[in-house]
Amino acid sequence: MDSYDVVVIGSGPAGQKAAIKCAKLGKRVALVDRREVVGGRCLHLGTIPSKTIRSAIIQLSGYYERKFYGSDYRVKQDITAQDLVFRCNAIIRREIEVISDMLVRNGVNVMHGEGSFLDPHTVRVAGHAGEADLKAEYIIVCTGSVAHVTRDLPFDKLHVLDTDDILLMSYLPKRMVILGGGVIGLEYASMFSLLDIEVAVVSTYTQLLPFVDRQLVEALENHMHRQQVRFYLGEEVSTVELRAPQQVHVQLKSGTELDAEMLLFAAQRWGNTLELNLAAAGLSAGPRGILEVNQNYQTAQPHIYAAGDVIGFPALASTSIDQGRKAANHLLHVRDTPYAPQFPYGIYTFPDVSMVGDSEQELQKRGQQYEVGIGYYRESARGQIIGDEDGLVKLLFDPDSRRLLGVHVIGAEATELIHLGQAVLINSGTIDYFLDTVFNYPTLAEVYKLAALNGFNKLPASRPMDHL
Amino acid sequence: MDSYDVVVIGSGPAGQKAAIKCAKLGKRVALVDRREVVGGRCLHLGTIPSKTIRSAIIQLSGYYERKFYGSDYRVKQDITAQDLVFRCNAIIRREIEVISDMLVRNGVNVMHGEGSFLDPHTVRVAGHAGEADLKAEYIIVCTGSVAHVTRDLPFDKLHVLDTDDILLMSYLPKRMVILGGGVIGLEYASMFSLLDIEVAVVSTYTQLLPFVDRQLVEALENHMHRQQVRFYLGEEVSTVELRAPQQVHVQLKSGTELDAEMLLFAAQRWGNTLELNLAAAGLSAGPRGILEVNQNYQTAQPHIYAAGDVIGFPALASTSIDQGRKAANHLLHVRDTPYAPQFPYGIYTFPDVSMVGDSEQELQKRGQQYEVGIGYYRESARGQIIGDEDGLVKLLFDPDSRRLLGVHVIGAEATELIHLGQAVLINSGTIDYFLDTVFNYPTLAEVYKLAALNGFNKLPASRPMDHL
Repeated sequence: MDSYDVVVIGSGPAGQKAAIKCAKLGKRVALVDRREVVGGRCLHLGTIPSKTIRSAIIQLSGYYERKFYGSDYRVKQDITAQDLVFRCNAIIRREIEVISDMLVRNGVNVMHGEGSFLDPHTVRVAGHAGEADLKAEYIIVCTGSVAHVTRDLPFDKLHVLDTDDILLMSYLPKRMVILGGGVIGLEYASMFSLLDIEVAVVSTYTQLLPFVDRQLVEALENHMHRQQVRFYLGEEVSTVELRAPQQVHVQLKSGTELDAEMLLFAAQRWGNTLELNLAAAGLSAGPRGILEVNQNYQTAQPHIYAAGDVIGFPALASTSIDQGRKAANHLLHVRDTPYAPQFPYGIYTFPDVSMVGDSEQELQKRGQQYEVGIGYYRESARGQIIGDEDGLVKLLFDPDSRRLLGVHVIGAEATELIHLGQAVLINSGTIDYFLDTVFNYPTLAEVYKLAALNGFNKLPASRPMDHL
Repeated sequence: MDSYDVVVIGSGPAGQKAAIKCAKLGKRVALVDRREVVGGRCLHLGTIPSKTIRSAIIQLSGYYERKFYGSDYRVKQDITAQDLVFRCNAIIRREIEVISDMLVRNGVNVMHGEGSFLDPHTVRVAGHAGEADLKAEYIIVCTGSVAHVTRDLPFDKLHVLDTDDILLMSYLPKRMVILGGGVIGLEYASMFSLLDIEVAVVSTYTQLLPFVDRQLVEALENHMHRQQVRFYLGEEVSTVELRAPQQVHVQLKSGTELDAEMLLFAAQRWGNTLELNLAAAGLSAGPRGILEVNQNYQTAQPHIYAAGDVIGFPALASTSIDQGRKAANHLLHVRDTPYAPQFPYGIYTFPDVSMVGDSEQELQKRGQQYEVGIGYYRESARGQIIGDEDGLVKLLFDPDSRRLLGVHVIGAEATELIHLGQAVLINSGTIDYFLDTVFNYPTLAEVYKLAALNGFNKLPASRPMDHL
C-alpha cells in the first residue's frame, strides 16, 4: 500500500491549493480526482464555463453598444449555443494545462478515480484501471458540491437541463424557465436575457439574495426586469412536462402555467459527501451533505480536514482557494494570516455585484452608526464611455472617524473594482483615501471618489473642508 | 467692472476643480473659457474623444474575440470614421451637461470669451458679445496646452490632421503616417492599428516612452509590431506633400519615403500661454510656453496660480484635477493632503499601460536594492477568458521588508487595475497583502497574487513559508 503524508480528495480550487502548499513544504502528496483530468466542477461545469459564457454573451450581444447604436444593435446577429460553448472548451483545455503543470512541477502525485474512506487513515481510489489504497497521515476532503435534485424532473439534457449540463446546451430557446433564484439561477437568468431570451425565474424564496444590500438587489431586479426577466417568487413547481421537442410546460402550485423551449434547473447545491463512505472514517455529513469543520478546517477527526464547497457557505472559488491554503497551513504548523474575514463576495449576474465588509443590515443589527455615500457610474466619464447607466458604488462608513465599514458595488467590472475598496478596508482606511488620491482619468475607480464625496457632504457642517 | 474673489481661466479638468472648490468655500468665482461650452480641450479634442474612440475600436474590432474566432473575426465588417465619431459627440454632449450642472449648482459664474491679463489683478474677457473686464483678488490659469507645430505641413483637416482635429476625421485610411512617438502618437497608432490600418510612426526620439519601465515598453512595442505598426525612430521629416486626394507622401531626412492616405500630426504640446498677455501681469512663459509654478502652484506673482497642462509634466487629466484642487486649497488656506506624489500614470495605448511608484531605473539610480515579481494575465483564468495573452503585472519591492516600491501593469484594464497596487503602495503595504488576501475569482486582480508569489519565491531560502 502506498503511503503519503497528505492525501487530498478533489482537484478543484481548494484541493489544488492544499495539495500544492503541502508539496511545496516537502510533504509527499497524492491528489485524487474522479475525473480523468484535474480542475474539479469549478473548471469543468461551474465557475469557468458560466463566467466564460457570460463574457461571450456580453461581447457578442453588444449590450453596452446599444446605448449608442440603438436597442436593436447586436454584434452578432445569429448567436448560437455553439458560439458560447466553443469558447468554454478552449479555455478549459488551457486551464487544465496550467493546473496540471503546476501540480507536476510541485511533485504532487495525481491519481484519477473515485476516492472514499476505508478507515480513518486510508483512502481507496477506484479508477478505470482498478483500485489502489493510499495510507495517509492527513487527509483533506475537497469534493465540492452536487446539485440537489428534489423532484423527478424529465431531465433529457436537451430540453431540461441541470446547470451542470450547461456545456451540453445545443440550441438557444426563445423562452427559458429557470428553477432556482439563488446566485447561480440569477447569473444564468441575467446572462441569457441579454440574448433576448425571455427568462422566467421560479423560486421558493420570497426575497432575492437576502445576504446582499437591498439597494443593489433592487438595482439588479430593475435591470433584469428591463431585460424582460419575470420573477415568480414564493412559488413552487407542481409539474414539469416535456410535451414535444422544445415544448416544456411548467405548472406552478399557485396555478400559474409557464411554457418555454428549455428549462434550466439551478438547484440548491449540497456538499458532495455521499460517496465518500464517511462512516468508515468515523465521520458523518451534516444537513445538506455538508462536512462540518472548526475554524482550522478540521473535521471531527482532527487529522481529516475539509475545505471548499463541501463545507458550505460561502462556497466561492475564491474562498475555497483560501480555505485550502488555511487547512494546509494548519496541518503543516505554519502561521496563518489575519486577512481572511474580509473577503469579497462576487456575483456574476449582469450587471455584476460585489461587496466586502459590512452591509447596512449588519450594521443596524449591531446598533452601529454609519453614514452612506453613493457614486453612480453615469456621473463619471468612464461610465459614460462604456455606456453603463445603472452602476453604482456604495460606501458605508463611520460618521465620526470616517473609517470605511463596507463597500457594495453593482455595475460593469464590479467584481474587479471591489478590490480597491477591499484594500482600503483591510488597511483600516477612511473614505478620505478616495477623496485625496489621484486616480487615472477616465476610469471607474473615480466612482469611489464620487461616492466618498457624496458621503462626506452628508456629514455635519463642522466637518473639515479640506477634502472637498 | 465686475469684481471677484477668484477668476479661473480655462474650464478643463484643472479649472473646473479649482473653480468649484473655491465656490464651495464661499468665494465669488468667475470661470472664463474661450469655447461656447465648458470642458476644455480634454473634453472636446483630447482625452475624452481619444478614449471614446479607443473604446469603440476595441469593441467594434472584436480584438479579444479573435483569439477564439480566428484572426479574421470582426464585430463590424465595415467600420467607418462615423461609427467612431458619433459616439464621441454623444458623450461630449452628456459631459458638458454634467460639468455645467456642477458649476451652476455651486454658483460659479461661467463666462465665454478669450481671457487675458490687463494687469496683475484684471482679466479681460473678449467674447462674441463684446468685452468685459474682471477684477480678481486671485487668478488661476488653467489654459492647458496647444499643439506645437514646428513645420509647415499641408494641414487640410481632411488628409493631413492634427490630433486636435480627430473628430473631423471623415474616412479611415488603409495606411496612416503618425508624426510623433510620444504618448498621444502611440495611443492613436495602437488604436488605429486594431482597425487593420497600416500605421507608420515617425519620431525624433530614439527610444519610446523613456519614463516607462523598459519591459513594459518592449511588450507594447512587440504588440504593436504584431499589429503591423512600423516605427521610424531617430528620424526627421524632410517634406510632406499632398499629391492627390488621399495621397500623402512623406520624405524623411534619412531618405526613407512613406506613402499613406492620411497623416496625423501628434505634436509636442506646449503650454497655452501665447494669448494670455502674461507681460501685463508681470509674468513670462518658460521654455515650451510653460508657466512655471512653485510647490503651491503659485507663479512668480503669488496671487496668480497655474494648474494643469499649462504647467507641463505630467500633463494628465487626473493630475490636473489634483493640481486645481491643490492650488485652490492653498489660496483658501486649507490644509492639504499628503497623497499626491504617488499618482498613477495611465497610457491608453492598446494594450494600456499604467504605473505608480518607482521604476527599476529610479531604484537603480538611488542605489536601492529591490526584487521583482511578475505575473502574467495568461496564467490567470480571467486573462484566459478575456483572451489577453500579453498582459502582465510587475511588482518592485524591498527584498528585506517586502515593502512594495513600484507597480507596473500592461494589458487589458491596466489603467483600472493599477489602483489596487496604488492603494497598497500608499498604505506602505508589503507584497504579503497580495499573497494573503482573497480576491474574487476569476478576476485580473489575481494576477497581483501571481506576481507577488513570483517575487516571493525569488527571496533567499530563509524566507518565511507562510505565504506560499
